[in-house]
Amino acid sequence: MSEAQTAADRPVYLVDPWCVREPELRLDRLAQSESVFALSNGHLGMRGNLDEGEPHGLPGTYLNSFYEQRPLPQAEVAYGYPESGQTVINVTNGKVIRLLVDDEPFDVRYGRVQAHERVLDMQAGTLTRHVEWTSPSDRTVKITSVRLVSLTQRAIAAICYEVEPVDHAVRVVAQSELVANEAMPNGTKDPRASAILDHPLVSEEHVANGTKVLLLHRTRQSGLRMAAGMSHEIEGPESMAIDTESSEDVGRLTVATRLEPGQKLRIVKFLAYGWSSKRSRPALHDQVVGALAGARQTGWDGLLKEQREYLDDFWCGADVEVDGDAEIQQAVRFGLFHVLQAGARAERRMIPAKGLTGPGYDGHTFWDTETFVLPVLTYTSPGAAADALAWRHMTLPLAVERANQLGLDGATFPWRTIRGHECSGYWPAGTAAFHINADIADAVIRYVDATQDEQFEREVGLEILVETARLWRSLGHHDVGGVFRIDGVTGPDEYSAIVDNNVYTNLMARRNLQAAAETAMRHPDVADRLGVNAEEAASWRDAAAAMVIPYDERLGVHPQSENFTNHARWDFAATKPDQYPLLLNFPYFDLYRKQVVKQADLVLALHLCGEAFTEEQKIRDFDYYEALTVRDSSLSAQTQAVVAAEVGQLELAHDYLGETALMDLHDLNRNTRDGLHIASMAGAWSGLVAGFGGMRADGGRLRFAPRLPGGISRLAFRMRYRGNRLKVSVTADTATYELLEGPGLKLWHHNEEVTLADEPAELPIEPIQQRPAPAQPAGREPAPRRIDPHGRVPRRG
Amino acid sequence: MSEAQTAADRPVYLVDPWCVREPELRLDRLAQSESVFALSNGHLGMRGNLDEGEPHGLPGTYLNSFYEQRPLPQAEVAYGYPESGQTVINVTNGKVIRLLVDDEPFDVRYGRVQAHERVLDMQAGTLTRHVEWTSPSDRTVKITSVRLVSLTQRAIAAICYEVEPVDHAVRVVAQSELVANEAMPNGTKDPRASAILDHPLVSEEHVANGTKVLLLHRTRQSGLRMAAGMSHEIEGPESMAIDTESSEDVGRLTVATRLEPGQKLRIVKFLAYGWSSKRSRPALHDQVVGALAGARQTGWDGLLKEQREYLDDFWCGADVEVDGDAEIQQAVRFGLFHVLQAGARAERRMIPAKGLTGPGYDGHTFWDTETFVLPVLTYTSPGAAADALAWRHMTLPLAVERANQLGLDGATFPWRTIRGHECSGYWPAGTAAFHINADIADAVIRYVDATQDEQFEREVGLEILVETARLWRSLGHHDVGGVFRIDGVTGPDEYSAIVDNNVYTNLMARRNLQAAAETAMRHPDVADRLGVNAEEAASWRDAAAAMVIPYDERLGVHPQSENFTNHARWDFAATKPDQYPLLLNFPYFDLYRKQVVKQADLVLALHLCGEAFTEEQKIRDFDYYEALTVRDSSLSAQTQAVVAAEVGQLELAHDYLGETALMDLHDLNRNTRDGLHIASMAGAWSGLVAGFGGMRADGGRLRFAPRLPGGISRLAFRMRYRGNRLKVSVTADTATYELLEGPGLKLWHHNEEVTLADEPAELPIEPIQQRPAPAQPAGREPAPRRIDPHGRVPRRG
Repeated sequence: MSEAQTAADRPVYLVDPWCVREPELRLDRLAQSESVFALSNGHLGMRGNLDEGEPHGLPGTYLNSFYEQRPLPQAEVAYGYPESGQTVINVTNGKVIRLLVDDEPFDVRYGRVQAHERVLDMQAGTLTRHVEWTSPSDRTVKITSVRLVSLTQRAIAAICYEVEPVDHAVRVVAQSELVANEAMPNGTKDPRASAILDHPLVSEEHVANGTKVLLLHRTRQSGLRMAAGMSHEIEGPESMAIDTESSEDVGRLTVATRLEPGQKLRIVKFLAYGWSSKRSRPALHDQVVGALAGARQTGWDGLLKEQREYLDDFWCGADVEVDGDAEIQQAVRFGLFHVLQAGARAERRMIPAKGLTGPGYDGHTFWDTETFVLPVLTYTSPGAAADALAWRHMTLPLAVERANQLGLDGATFPWRTIRGHECSGYWPAGTAAFHINADIADAVIRYVDATQDEQFEREVGLEILVETARLWRSLGHHDVGGVFRIDGVTGPDEYSAIVDNNVYTNLMARRNLQAAAETAMRHPDVADRLGVNAEEAASWRDAAAAMVIPYDERLGVHPQSENFTNHARWDFAATKPDQYPLLLNFPYFDLYRKQVVKQADLVLALHLCGEAFTEEQKIRDFDYYEALTVRDSSLSAQTQAVVAAEVGQLELAHDYLGETALMDLHDLNRNTRDGLHIASMAGAWSGLVAGFGGMRADGGRLRFAPRLPGGISRLAFRMRYRGNRLKVSVTADTATYELLEGPGLKLWHHNEEVTLADEPAELPIEPIQQRPAPAQPAGREPAPRRIDPHGRVPRRG
Repeated sequence: MSEAQTAADRPVYLVDPWCVREPELRLDRLAQSESVFALSNGHLGMRGNLDEGEPHGLPGTYLNSFYEQRPLPQAEVAYGYPESGQTVINVTNGKVIRLLVDDEPFDVRYGRVQAHERVLDMQAGTLTRHVEWTSPSDRTVKITSVRLVSLTQRAIAAICYEVEPVDHAVRVVAQSELVANEAMPNGTKDPRASAILDHPLVSEEHVANGTKVLLLHRTRQSGLRMAAGMSHEIEGPESMAIDTESSEDVGRLTVATRLEPGQKLRIVKFLAYGWSSKRSRPALHDQVVGALAGARQTGWDGLLKEQREYLDDFWCGADVEVDGDAEIQQAVRFGLFHVLQAGARAERRMIPAKGLTGPGYDGHTFWDTETFVLPVLTYTSPGAAADALAWRHMTLPLAVERANQLGLDGATFPWRTIRGHECSGYWPAGTAAFHINADIADAVIRYVDATQDEQFEREVGLEILVETARLWRSLGHHDVGGVFRIDGVTGPDEYSAIVDNNVYTNLMARRNLQAAAETAMRHPDVADRLGVNAEEAASWRDAAAAMVIPYDERLGVHPQSENFTNHARWDFAATKPDQYPLLLNFPYFDLYRKQVVKQADLVLALHLCGEAFTEEQKIRDFDYYEALTVRDSSLSAQTQAVVAAEVGQLELAHDYLGETALMDLHDLNRNTRDGLHIASMAGAWSGLVAGFGGMRADGGRLRFAPRLPGGISRLAFRMRYRGNRLKVSVTADTATYELLEGPGLKLWHHNEEVTLADEPAELPIEPIQQRPAPAQPAGREPAPRRIDPHGRVPRRG
């Protein structure tokens, strides 16, 4: 591995506008690359593990919402704590194709790797690998594999695997496998949890038949059933011996042959997966076998073609072009690709914080999805956004039950979950973070505004708005002075907790209450079915109108929550660089009582509730919180990018954009191994479109306020809005709006109304006055995206 | 057990001024009685289990600070959480004397119990039992046992056991035992903890020799070593067969004989216990054998005599007489007796919340001790108070280490502990309750004021004051307006948490800071050794002077903490009686954000920091918090009694006095089985002396403001103060102050200065104007102590 060590300074991935290319195998970044090269359609996810299974960082194959229960122990139990959690498990691995060359197992840790390249192609939707390997006994083979997880056939993945000798004839044996209950590296520390999660699947059936093998398992505690099947098409010399076998946890097809130079063994492996909490073993068996038959009917080339067509359609309404910063160009497409992969075919399942790229956060979904991911999908792949919200709607009965348990009206959505049950084990940063309910409501409002999807509004949206409005009405109260207060909650910033009148929460709750009242009025029949009467709707409007928004007159800024600006400031000067993230080195009590901000909170309100602030307030508030925000959360930089751009701090915005966009490609937080930060990936889009494009769509008006930083010479983005597909192109002094498809629309350019129809509209951008940049806490400045004299951005991370 | 059931309406204990008498065995109250009849000297504690071991509620023998470690699991781990806790364990049981009567085991569940009486004698310091039992085969015996845990010989307990036949001759076999690792009923739910605690002792040695047996064990995790030994004096007919034996967990002496009517078997069993974290097995062995030899030398009658002398000396400086309310008369002596038992010979070990009477709260000590128990000991048995504070002083290095871990200066004493390590598993109601540090400091201030013990002040007190002052100085900060704030802490009321500027905490911290500065000035040499310079002391004075004390001008009351009075009031009307205690039926988040008070908090400040409030404020504040306080903590009623008396609500004070005084005799909270509420027991004294006696000693002046409720015709109490022993006698219109011993002193009677020397001083008590009584939350009114026409108080509980 000395080669890997000397390579440590070279970039892991090459910068290319449409691909992520790993030019050599970096064993020191194996787990990171498994996340970066993960393929998924939102239903089935496969980490970018090597075909031969080993070495690996973390083996991973996931089925959305297929989980096991685990205990949530507490030193001191209290009312309302969830007793068990849900955790994503590594399901049957169908990626494995092992190879023996003259009896030597192909393993990159032995022999010599002459060449090794992997390419994630974001237009083709494939991961391609080229290897040239010389075995310890000096036989050289070329191996090519192409892998896809189908965006068109939800149950299906496929691998095309080819091996050929380079100079000498070789005997090759290929073993294509299904492996359940893989041994996992470094398990959890909790012995009870690891006992459950180390061997989560119980075999119910295994069959081998021709080139087909199927394994069927169920989980011990959660009682879910899954099946994985494989089927093969094999081309090679005539004298091939093919055999299949199955046992409880292993299915195997073995091909043995002799290859002369010029000859090739080609295996196309079709994989199908299915799971259910309800369907019988035979039904699930048949479902998977049927899916395999469908995939074979389509064939490898057919799957490739469908995949590209699906992606072409996506990119034509979603692509973002960035001139002047090639890293960001690559990163925004990488981000969009993974956001799409996370949501494309989730279809009424949740979108986890890590997508299906790794086991991080137990595979849970959080507010990340509604607040950071759905805005991207709403304007690029709106059907996926609708599906994600329909999943929330499906879980409403659980959320109503939880609210009832907590003594509240309406619904309380879980802070973290897989299937809708609260799985948070620390209530001050879980249950108390009620803002998630307004975040979900806001995603509904945004989706309906962007699509005018009235059926959705009636069948899904209104009920969510009503139940969350009921929550806010019961969570808050009018004090004797008549204002409506929301006390004892936790806002987005997890370095404060259980606070009174968090500005973000109160503003979002206000919007939630108003929207529920307005939407109920638009659909009186549905409202009536939901038990909403005029008095209730009026009480929502009243609460919204009386909502208290604290303001510190003395400092001329909004306190993040009541009293916040009276608290001691964190002693940033005394905090050492290796003490970040702070939560690993300081107790919650100390973080909570001081002015230190983990992630944009008041600044997120500046972005999402901009109408509640004057321009002057935005500038003052942004500057104030810049000095306090340490970005110990990956959710922060994108919001700071958007608001920095809005208040004219364009270079700072560019720096923050870099941080969110390169979070995983540069492994900035050193935890990409556990899965990609899907919200950060979405943030690349937000930083460009909402940041430098100035896109806002609140209040029913689609507005842009484009303005570029010095390092970006041109920005162009496509989006979908109310049946239109449009393209916005921005340079330093001009913005061009172009209708690509659809009936046309009105939009606003820097407060100027524009009616967009057949002709593109080109409008000037006025320069702004430079203000001094605000300071961040010492050592927490974002890495600058300075441009070197040759126009290249220096690599980081 | 039908008898027990029909007896359910009869009082469990008879009311007697100096005894607690159980006139019949109540199997339904077995565990309660084991706590009530527990004997202890603060070092060794024995629950009132029946001699024959079974039936039992909860077997229990405890050695102060002899504990085992147990895991403190957390669903989500964070910085600074303790990883393991300490839990008291049931050590080798030496109480057991089993009896066979003509081969039938004596067991009250079989045969017929003709008579069964137990008497706790608070002047003798013994528990006496008389039984007359007829065996299933119709043989009747009388059994008498007298048990004591010696207050004079710290390692020693003793039992005098007598059996005699009533009419027929019987063969009797008595087995006197030591039993380690007794099986416990209903273990913990946590399988890991129960694995540790079900069989906590590992045998290291066992010896039987003559009538002596010794068992020596160590704990598995905490590595502590203990020894228990027994030795016997046996009197009976000449033809007795005596045998001893030992095995790892059982030591046994067996006496077999035949008793004719008129003959008696008498066994005096001497027990000795010792434990150490450092001493070797042989050293501990010898220590216990030596203690046994000493006890045998004193003899049974000698032990009884010493015990009574010790108690006579205690009562002559501590007794409280109450005329008009016989239950309270009994209860206050019962409380004083148990407070003494908890602290008498603890000698630099902690005083647990349950004393050594049961396993409740894991055997931990809390702020209860310094705030509620030590005031009683300070004025009645000051040496015990000094010892308890010396124990805190011994743990200072751990408290300094903990403060350092939390990023604070000075010392942070643990919220709950056995040996000084933080054992709290829920930081918002543990670590955040920093007031415990001021409570400990206040106990130091009070002890020094009451004793003028300068050596203690120099060797123990000052260092505690200095390190806690340093804590406060670093925990608080001056805001831009110049006031000193203490944010993000939890006050006494556990239905609020992580609040800013809790009035009680800030006032107590202020006193702590001032006292540290003043005491350092008095002992500059010690202060210098502790690194205190003039600048540091000045910074304490500055912080104290600038301490913010929130006040709600609009309502004219003090908010318990900043913003408290803006919060929604708890919906008491909608809360059902069976939903108390609220914490078992509502989530913390809901309790924390509303105006609902578990236990006196602001009202505790009214008592302990009375100088900070005007009389008018006290009245308004008391009334305001009465309407919000649900007394889900046993620590609340006594404080409400004291302050109710101060503000002239004498009948209400009497009601609250009843609640604290009868907590365990009437098992008001239905958990006396787990041990007595030592702080509640202390509260009987406080309610009478600080409440109706109006005793305060802050600011160096001993003040009284006596005033009796209608149901108490006379109150007299004795106390020790600055080398004096005095007696205060109060009737409806007169108070008499009498110096029993000592150099004399100045005191204040209702603001009138009195110099007390040889002659008693008799002073009038002015009547006060009646105000309407404040309301409590619906259903949470204290039980009234109304007097029936015959002058008897109706029994409750």
